Amino acid sequence: MLLSWVLTLQPEEEATVPSNQGRAAHAWFLGRVRAADATLADELHGGQGLRPFTVSNLWELGREGGPEASLLPARTYTLRATSFSPRLSALLRERVLPGLPPALSIGGAALRVVGSTTDPAQHPWAAGATFEGLVQQFTLAADVPRTVGLRFLSPTAFRVTGKKRAVPLPLPALVFGGLVDKWNAFAPIQVHPDVRRFAEECLAVSSYGLETRRVLFGEDGERGAYSGFVGRCHYYVEVPDRYWMGLIQLLAGFSLYAGVGVRTTMGLGQARKLEPRSGGRGR
Amino acid sequence: MLLSWVLTLQPEEEATVPSNQGRAAHAWFLGRVRAADATLADELHGGQGLRPFTVSNLWELGREGGPEASLLPARTYTLRATSFSPRLSALLRERVLPGLPPALSIGGAALRVVGSTTDPAQHPWAAGATFEGLVQQFTLAADVPRTVGLRFLSPTAFRVTGKKRAVPLPLPALVFGGLVDKWNAFAPIQVHPDVRRFAEECLAVSSYGLETRRVLFGEDGERGAYSGFVGRCHYYVEVPDRYWMGLIQLLAGFSLYAGVGVRTTMGLGQARKLEPRSGGRGR
Repeated sequence: MLLSWVLTLQPEEEATVPSNQGRAAHAWFLGRVRAADATLADELHGGQGLRPFTVSNLWELGREGGPEASLLPARTYTLRATSFSPRLSALLRERVLPGLPPALSIGGAALRVVGSTTDPAQHPWAAGATFEGLVQQFTLAADVPRTVGLRFLSPTAFRVTGKKRAVPLPLPALVFGGLVDKWNAFAPIQVHPDVRRFAEECLAVSSYGLETRRVLFGEDGERGAYSGFVGRCHYYVEVPDRYWMGLIQLLAGFSLYAGVGVRTTMGLGQARKLEPRSGGRGR
Repeated sequence: MLLSWVLTLQPEEEATVPSNQGRAAHAWFLGRVRAADATLADELHGGQGLRPFTVSNLWELGREGGPEASLLPARTYTLRATSFSPRLSALLRERVLPGLPPALSIGGAALRVVGSTTDPAQHPWAAGATFEGLVQQFTLAADVPRTVGLRFLSPTAFRVTGKKRAVPLPLPALVFGGLVDKWNAFAPIQVHPDVRRFAEECLAVSSYGLETRRVLFGEDGERGAYSGFVGRCHYYVEVPDRYWMGLIQLLAGFSLYAGVGVRTTMGLGQARKLEPRSGGRGR
């Protein structure tokens, strides 16, 4: 079971806050998990491995640029958390979502919960799926498209061996290599890890519109400073192969839950597959 | 001697033309060279090697998107040609520019010459320099910046071994590796070719705003179809070294004349170094 849970929040009063609330949102999310299952919360918090969840920044804050942003009571703000482990998803659905308090505090600001959903009919980034369902949807389709597009909603970057700074470019091997690692860490059905090599050798960036944004963790970036890209990127399969193309589509679909790149549990790398395009523009 | 020659042109009547006039501009430019020195024109036209010149598309056409664009008599249009071989530059300055006819024909459209300059005071993309002067300016400065930015004015892409399509990403090794090849092919002072390796290993993309555009050569792209990027990209030196950093600045400065990537003699890859920024945004 995979979940994409979208919360709509309304500030109780006006406040000026750091525009990156990724750490605060992360802490809030783990707090809710802890209240329902302290052992699972400890597992999610500890260790160095891949985590089966993502938590966004308050979407509207990150868009404004600058280190600080205003929370206005007249507006609503969006927070999204995802899970891609069966155990965490079950806990969220059975305990955390039903037991959600009427207000929450993020970074010292009190926010009323005015919406909470995993239903895509209620919010375009809300969703639920099973690993089996994703495999069915994306790899067993009669016609596997030769292109795939991703939308990067929050700043996205990649840790690369030998580079001091995270790389803010949607290189095929980085995007799909990271996704296959996460898939294989948590899905009951394994995907061939050579999909990373297929992405590197046979997938080409065909068109994009992207810009970088600077994200600081801690007041002066002492807990991490990133240049991450937002926008859209389309890939094209140079060497068509139905098997690998299906896996690429699958991993792109998985990105809605898994996120892409570094610090996805603290707001970065919120991404999703774009609907296939009809026209050929920019292919 | 290096030259960046900017022509301002006004259509004699309204016309609808293919928005990519890169091949036509290329043919017009070689025609002017041929009229002054047929032997040199043959050398520039023949063979498979690097060419010591670039020719732009009519700038304003390429910006509109779509396969066709309007030439309006009420507007002016910009054409830029550059040279980075001493012999071609001398010919341009001594014979071609002084002997320029009052009108020219590109892609069947007649355009009056209303401006022709290599003086940066008259047009921001007009310029003249010597190889020695560039070396002096960029590598012998007291303080070599740790960042460098490039503006990509026309669609830019790179031929990469093993990839069928040109790669529309400003990867450091592609940008600076291509520039060092051109520099060493035509400059009297050689630059260490390992600058490509330095760019690959020690230069990081730090911030950018880029989008791809589709460029077709021939009516349906039968003479080449490219997805190229336009916009701005900044690089940051992860391992500071005064020597290599100076060469990176030099090659960035050289890009105004040399162009970047594929098909620079037919409109693609018009680029230049950005002035150093004062702020730290997006670094």
